[in-house]
Amino acid sequence: MDITRLWGDAFDKQPAQETIEFMAGRDVTGLAPADENLIEVDLLGNKAHCLMLQQQGIISSDEARLILEALAEIENLYRAGEFKLDPAKEDVHSNIEAFLVKRCGMEAGGKIHTGRSRNDQVALDMRLYLRSEVIKLSASLTGLIKGLLTRAGEHLNTIMPGYTHHQHAMLTTFGHLLLSFAEGMQRDLERLRDWYNLFNKNPLGSAAAYSTTFQLDRELTSRLLGFDSPHLTSLDPITNRWEPEASLAAAISLMMNHFSAIAQSFILFSTSEFNFIKLSDAYCSGSSIMPQKKNPCSLEVIKARAAIAQGILISLLSIGQSNLFGYNRDSQWTKYLVMDLIRETGACPVILKGVIDSLEVNKKRMLEESGRGFITATALAEALVRHHGLSFRQAKSLISKAVKYSKGEDKVSFSALKQAISEENLSLSATGDQVEDYQDPERIISRKRCSGGPAPAIVQRGIEEIEAGLISNQNWWDEKLKQIEAGQKEMARLEAALSKNK
Amino acid sequence: MDITRLWGDAFDKQPAQETIEFMAGRDVTGLAPADENLIEVDLLGNKAHCLMLQQQGIISSDEARLILEALAEIENLYRAGEFKLDPAKEDVHSNIEAFLVKRCGMEAGGKIHTGRSRNDQVALDMRLYLRSEVIKLSASLTGLIKGLLTRAGEHLNTIMPGYTHHQHAMLTTFGHLLLSFAEGMQRDLERLRDWYNLFNKNPLGSAAAYSTTFQLDRELTSRLLGFDSPHLTSLDPITNRWEPEASLAAAISLMMNHFSAIAQSFILFSTSEFNFIKLSDAYCSGSSIMPQKKNPCSLEVIKARAAIAQGILISLLSIGQSNLFGYNRDSQWTKYLVMDLIRETGACPVILKGVIDSLEVNKKRMLEESGRGFITATALAEALVRHHGLSFRQAKSLISKAVKYSKGEDKVSFSALKQAISEENLSLSATGDQVEDYQDPERIISRKRCSGGPAPAIVQRGIEEIEAGLISNQNWWDEKLKQIEAGQKEMARLEAALSKNK
Amino acid sequence: MDITRLWGDAFDKQPAQETIEFMAGRDVTGLAPADENLIEVDLLGNKAHCLMLQQQGIISSDEARLILEALAEIENLYRAGEFKLDPAKEDVHSNIEAFLVKRCGMEAGGKIHTGRSRNDQVALDMRLYLRSEVIKLSASLTGLIKGLLTRAGEHLNTIMPGYTHHQHAMLTTFGHLLLSFAEGMQRDLERLRDWYNLFNKNPLGSAAAYSTTFQLDRELTSRLLGFDSPHLTSLDPITNRWEPEASLAAAISLMMNHFSAIAQSFILFSTSEFNFIKLSDAYCSGSSIMPQKKNPCSLEVIKARAAIAQGILISLLSIGQSNLFGYNRDSQWTKYLVMDLIRETGACPVILKGVIDSLEVNKKRMLEESGRGFITATALAEALVRHHGLSFRQAKSLISKAVKYSKGEDKVSFSALKQAISEENLSLSATGDQVEDYQDPERIISRKRCSGGPAPAIVQRGIEEIEAGLISNQNWWDEKLKQIEAGQKEMARLEAALSKNK
Amino acid sequence: MDITRLWGDAFDKQPAQETIEFMAGRDVTGLAPADENLIEVDLLGNKAHCLMLQQQGIISSDEARLILEALAEIENLYRAGEFKLDPAKEDVHSNIEAFLVKRCGMEAGGKIHTGRSRNDQVALDMRLYLRSEVIKLSASLTGLIKGLLTRAGEHLNTIMPGYTHHQHAMLTTFGHLLLSFAEGMQRDLERLRDWYNLFNKNPLGSAAAYSTTFQLDRELTSRLLGFDSPHLTSLDPITNRWEPEASLAAAISLMMNHFSAIAQSFILFSTSEFNFIKLSDAYCSGSSIMPQKKNPCSLEVIKARAAIAQGILISLLSIGQSNLFGYNRDSQWTKYLVMDLIRETGACPVILKGVIDSLEVNKKRMLEESGRGFITATALAEALVRHHGLSFRQAKSLISKAVKYSKGEDKVSFSALKQAISEENLSLSATGDQVEDYQDPERIISRKRCSGGPAPAIVQRGIEEIEAGLISNQNWWDEKLKQIEAGQKEMARLEAALSKNK
Repeated sequence: MDITRLWGDAFDKQPAQETIEFMAGRDVTGLAPADENLIEVDLLGNKAHCLMLQQQGIISSDEARLILEALAEIENLYRAGEFKLDPAKEDVHSNIEAFLVKRCGMEAGGKIHTGRSRNDQVALDMRLYLRSEVIKLSASLTGLIKGLLTRAGEHLNTIMPGYTHHQHAMLTTFGHLLLSFAEGMQRDLERLRDWYNLFNKNPLGSAAAYSTTFQLDRELTSRLLGFDSPHLTSLDPITNRWEPEASLAAAISLMMNHFSAIAQSFILFSTSEFNFIKLSDAYCSGSSIMPQKKNPCSLEVIKARAAIAQGILISLLSIGQSNLFGYNRDSQWTKYLVMDLIRETGACPVILKGVIDSLEVNKKRMLEESGRGFITATALAEALVRHHGLSFRQAKSLISKAVKYSKGEDKVSFSALKQAISEENLSLSATGDQVEDYQDPERIISRKRCSGGPAPAIVQRGIEEIEAGLISNQNWWDEKLKQIEAGQKEMARLEAALSKNK
Repeated sequence: MDITRLWGDAFDKQPAQETIEFMAGRDVTGLAPADENLIEVDLLGNKAHCLMLQQQGIISSDEARLILEALAEIENLYRAGEFKLDPAKEDVHSNIEAFLVKRCGMEAGGKIHTGRSRNDQVALDMRLYLRSEVIKLSASLTGLIKGLLTRAGEHLNTIMPGYTHHQHAMLTTFGHLLLSFAEGMQRDLERLRDWYNLFNKNPLGSAAAYSTTFQLDRELTSRLLGFDSPHLTSLDPITNRWEPEASLAAAISLMMNHFSAIAQSFILFSTSEFNFIKLSDAYCSGSSIMPQKKNPCSLEVIKARAAIAQGILISLLSIGQSNLFGYNRDSQWTKYLVMDLIRETGACPVILKGVIDSLEVNKKRMLEESGRGFITATALAEALVRHHGLSFRQAKSLISKAVKYSKGEDKVSFSALKQAISEENLSLSATGDQVEDYQDPERIISRKRCSGGPAPAIVQRGIEEIEAGLISNQNWWDEKLKQIEAGQKEMARLEAALSKNK
Repeated sequence: MDITRLWGDAFDKQPAQETIEFMAGRDVTGLAPADENLIEVDLLGNKAHCLMLQQQGIISSDEARLILEALAEIENLYRAGEFKLDPAKEDVHSNIEAFLVKRCGMEAGGKIHTGRSRNDQVALDMRLYLRSEVIKLSASLTGLIKGLLTRAGEHLNTIMPGYTHHQHAMLTTFGHLLLSFAEGMQRDLERLRDWYNLFNKNPLGSAAAYSTTFQLDRELTSRLLGFDSPHLTSLDPITNRWEPEASLAAAISLMMNHFSAIAQSFILFSTSEFNFIKLSDAYCSGSSIMPQKKNPCSLEVIKARAAIAQGILISLLSIGQSNLFGYNRDSQWTKYLVMDLIRETGACPVILKGVIDSLEVNKKRMLEESGRGFITATALAEALVRHHGLSFRQAKSLISKAVKYSKGEDKVSFSALKQAISEENLSLSATGDQVEDYQDPERIISRKRCSGGPAPAIVQRGIEEIEAGLISNQNWWDEKLKQIEAGQKEMARLEAALSKNK
Repeated sequence: MDITRLWGDAFDKQPAQETIEFMAGRDVTGLAPADENLIEVDLLGNKAHCLMLQQQGIISSDEARLILEALAEIENLYRAGEFKLDPAKEDVHSNIEAFLVKRCGMEAGGKIHTGRSRNDQVALDMRLYLRSEVIKLSASLTGLIKGLLTRAGEHLNTIMPGYTHHQHAMLTTFGHLLLSFAEGMQRDLERLRDWYNLFNKNPLGSAAAYSTTFQLDRELTSRLLGFDSPHLTSLDPITNRWEPEASLAAAISLMMNHFSAIAQSFILFSTSEFNFIKLSDAYCSGSSIMPQKKNPCSLEVIKARAAIAQGILISLLSIGQSNLFGYNRDSQWTKYLVMDLIRETGACPVILKGVIDSLEVNKKRMLEESGRGFITATALAEALVRHHGLSFRQAKSLISKAVKYSKGEDKVSFSALKQAISEENLSLSATGDQVEDYQDPERIISRKRCSGGPAPAIVQRGIEEIEAGLISNQNWWDEKLKQIEAGQKEMARLEAALSKNK
């Protein structure tokens, strides 16, 4: 009995494997040791440190060559899935150092730790790891925004109720709604850039937080590793080892809140009662007992993960809250926290994009509800101001009464309006046709054409503005990627020079 | 190069494996899938459900026998390490059901899910799992309290500074301090009992939250599983599936705060500057770079884990915050959260007990600081009230001045006191010897013999009171364990009766 | 232009003043100084301390009389609104002590602070204050539960959809739903009792945390103030001054989560799309711009306040997290936090009760949706098991297909079922009438009569069980109130004896 | 009896009023209604809206003039302390609108609300309010950083222990420590700029979230109010009304964590046991019972306020977590939360600056501890590498043993080193004088001259770099202030033109 047997019988389409995994969480999937995430970046840091030690004459060219060869060997083993972390060797740093000492001898291998400590090593590894995850997240978030814009463009004229307090407020369009989601996510993108600007700094060379008597060239390692500069002091990145993690968790929590509110909106839209959208089976799952169920699980899981992000943020802030300066072991736990955060939230933009790409819109139901609950009353009041000389306060008060007198209906009736007018001792020229016109959904939407509004042309212009923003954002990141590549090329040059001089 | 080579060279004693694992966290250790924690309890729930279905005539005795045999087979496989969860089967519930269907055929195996859903199954599993963890935690916490009491008894006369605002306040003893820690932990124990009372209720038979048309006997399954009763409604335990988890997280967070403050106090006590205690090497680790380091890592890790607990609590509350009633997928994540909580905090009482059992007290340093910073000034002021007729406000004001005039000293000098007396135009009969006596540390402690104070006899009485409390607490838990055993015996009887009637 | 003009024109009924205040929050209402909340309890503590000092011979009867008279004077001033806290005197404790010194002279008034500190004074005040708030909260929560039960009793037969994942799951009744809310709140009540048991202990006599050389009678002050006993150590209640606050915040957060989920459910129910209930205008407010709006503001505000509670809980845990033992000034902020908590959440049970008492149920809409989305499919599958010999897995799979073949309909059609049956090569005796019957809402509800289910008789029994629980809960609290009164009587006797002996 | 009487007798200097208030919190100080904070900005928003309506021909010049005169009248009343919010009028927006209607008549006054809602009004007010608070915070934070740099410059040569795990790690200087604090705070400054860039956008004209049929000129109001642009959609700023608040709370929480860790470090430094620094009496308070106490209350209060910030952040995220799009009343509570945040944290940079400016450094004690606990062992190991040909791993292992053999001493002795050397079968040329030299504190510091280290010249260079950064930061803000002023000037011009054309 596989999942299909358990609940998929009524489905037209089965969820993709990645969606199943997203929804299944950790039920049947374990987690790898945290330091497995750091093997590659630790090797990179070792390489840069080794080259710098050689350039500074702290180790000899021969020693450097030996170490670099051994590092390359680990990298090959790792890529082949054959470099395993030995728990007896405590962490990734000592596993790699132990390998180097074994391969190169204590004489050469014993020198790799010159002028550094595990404190700056792990701080470095986390920067490189987080930097790379931020780059990935920025890309998938960009994809999601593009997805929103595409669908917004398809629904410029799809009229639907706008809500405040979960109650019918005024009309809008589905395109306007999707565009507003995209606007919020632009800030999420921006926050990732802000993070990068704050933390693309090199902690290597801090040693245990108080520097070293070796004359390290920290400008060189910064360049090799694509950092903007070394940290100004050796102490700050160690005392505040929780901060890049907490700062990223804040940015991600804010982003997840956006996702979570979208998820909640779509969950409501796909209830029997709203029936505004239909999610693709590919993002749903069923029940072990109820034959008819197609549950919006992917969206619920996004909400859960937003809650996870908040807790992780608090734990990170709590760890960094009031310790004596310098390294404290408490901060080791920030590593697991931020890795959990990334694991829990990293796939969300992709899944959410999938949901949005594939959802079916029930325009008929949306339009039906767009005629309910006096949702056009404000537009009517505004029209009385625009065309019939009332002040807004008068018009609003008048229409409030007219709403009251239209009980049982969904729009303000002409007779109710007249009753209200006469009660207020006003003389108003509006005709029945006009009152009808002022409450016509399509016309209302077309009249909401001031900046930010739902009129199709305005939404279309908004789509284009965000698209332009995405391009300039992409250019920014491309520069950053070039900077990283430049470091790698310089590293390759130095390594080649070493080999040549053998 | 193993850990010893990396940092253990200056250690007299190496940390035990469990301490190393406690300190190493998830660096080199992965996590098993969450549902592995539920295999045993899921089997138990299946067994109770199957027996009940048979007793109610919903399935036949033959069908029940087949199912029970297959469940026993899984249990044997599991104990032999050969029952693995297949990710393709989504979770522990469908893995086990799939096995039953395969073993007993759709005819019989397909009946195990009669009148239940995964919603009540997982709610049941979590109750059984959490209940068992709470029982374990209560036991290890009791052990820690006993450890505190033992050491408190050894240090009835170990005088030390009491602090407020981190400043020398008044004298106390190390025994008094440890007893106060034990007093707080009694509340932690109590909260575990409160949790048990609230949540030792049976959710099985709720089906998907809205009950079933099968006539289940929920009193029977409650008895078999050692619960106090079924839940009153089928809906409450499903809507509030986050609540036993969040409620436990609150209890554990409060407990961890106690541990964290103790950890912080001991970390300060073991600084070079305080030098009040020396932690056993067995609970420390060293540095990759600094030869002299012995770091109080086990205590720092306890602090980190307290921070983790707070974040988990917030995530749990956040998940349970404002959903529509009934099951929502978000709550699946509460499973991982509470398992993480238990993994992170479960060992803390044991480790903290080890630290306390093995720490060395530097009585000399404690006494030395007990003579500093006018820490006996309040006792002197009180003596002037008790023996020389001043009101407390007068005495306090007088001694404040005397402190000012004793600048550069650590106790109030007789001459400074006389100067203050004369300034205030008081005539006071105190002699130099008396002033000395009133500020004598040992005598002060012996005079602090009102209820709750540090006088040795009072602390001794407190130790005995807590010991008595621990016994009555133990009796309470013993009753609960008997209730669980009674259920298991009844289950065995029903199963035996079934076999006999074959 | 008052509120009515701004938005009330379309309302039948205006919100009550207390509801307006509940919704308006702090927009136009300031907060009084925190210590104003403590004047009464501080006077009480002073009185008990004074009587005890006299009984122990630490102060004379004349001095005690003077002090008690001055305390009575303050109390009279306070009741007349004429005792104002002078900011120059720092806090309530020093304001009152200053008054005593001024009134009774330094000779007598200067003795009230004998053997105590502000540390134990504020700890005492907070216990007394929180105790009294917990008593009030328990009463209003009881009122809310009673309200739920009353309305549950009215809706035993009001059929509605039960949801999981926000999707139609199975049928239930509105009475069953309300009863499930009440079941959860019973635990909230229980947690208030647990809190009381843990913290109804006397911190007075701890002095600055390290006791005193005066021979205080802490059993006496405990009795006078209605406490179960003094704390075992002078240090624990000072070190853990954050704990009664945090522990209460945890209990209240859990309760608020219950309220918040109910609020969310009712907000959805009152949307245009659900249209299941209509909130009374008395718990709504309108819009400054939209004439038609009646917003469920009271429910939204409950959700906001649940969010506030979580933040306060975290701040309290954070303050108590890892300080050195003894008093630390950080904990002063716990006072504001818990007072904010009480102010924000205290009225919630009353408001929520009002909302529930007054909401109108749209049975027709509920029944209409009860026929949608194959919500009766599980009942049909169960019937095939009960009457037609299928295993549940077979039945569920069969009905899943039948659902698929009934696309466009809301119930499984007989022809779709037959198609599924023939595909599965089953021979099944069910007739069209039976298939109709098995999916009949009323009959399904009446068949869900196992423990915890929605059958009217079962829900009625549940109502009675909770009512019985409320009575026994009330008895428990009555005992506690008697204990407090007994203390006050003993205080009055001691005071009278003093006056007589003048 | 004033505060001085209660505890100040032993003080040389009394705390300033603002420090007393900072420490006294809300004990004897109430809070004003939240909307009092918004009167000025609401008037500003009204003015801009009114001028725009007139420019667009939506209201007449005469109407605009009337309204502007009434607004000016309110402003004058407000400045004179005579404009009070009437609770019957619900909030600041309706209070002001009611005044306008009363003053200008329904005809003109009733038009101010044309094309807007309270939803966009409050969103606007909060932007203007928060923007102004961020500007102030940035200024006071800059002041604090400057204070740190000044004192860092004074202590380039003040040698002290550097800690990891609260244990002596390696030597550093007090100047290096202070510079590292300043480095962290630069990121806090940066985050305030990032916030400003994200949120200096105009929500006015969103109306109730779905725009309006009036042809508003949102570019104009944006310019008048100093915003970079209007929001792209009318919906985003309303749905995400919690976001500027939460985003700022994240930035402030991170900043407060920096402050809190500094506070904790200084609290430890001022214990009797460390005795590294002496806080000025002006930032301390005393005890009601203990004559000798001078407590570092201002620092403890900073820690408390950091805990408050975290809770507020969580409440804000919780409110914004998973609501349906559009306005929900829950978000009204974000107003109180962020105002509480600002009230609690706003003064912290100023107070912390005061503490740092005025603290006395005990260089003698710092130097004394700089010779304890083998704090120079790493430098010795490094010297063996630099001058005697060992690999670092060998040297570290060797010195670890030498530390072990030097038990009871504070530095590695020559004899212990020789013993270790001989055991390891090494031949090492180091002399006793060299071993002494390698462990000499001053020389070690002077050798730590690689980038980021504590050598005086390096720290001096760091000071200069941060100073340069502060200047460029100031320039950035100056531009922003000019932008705001430009808007105000344009507003004045438009107003003047209106008056002229009367």
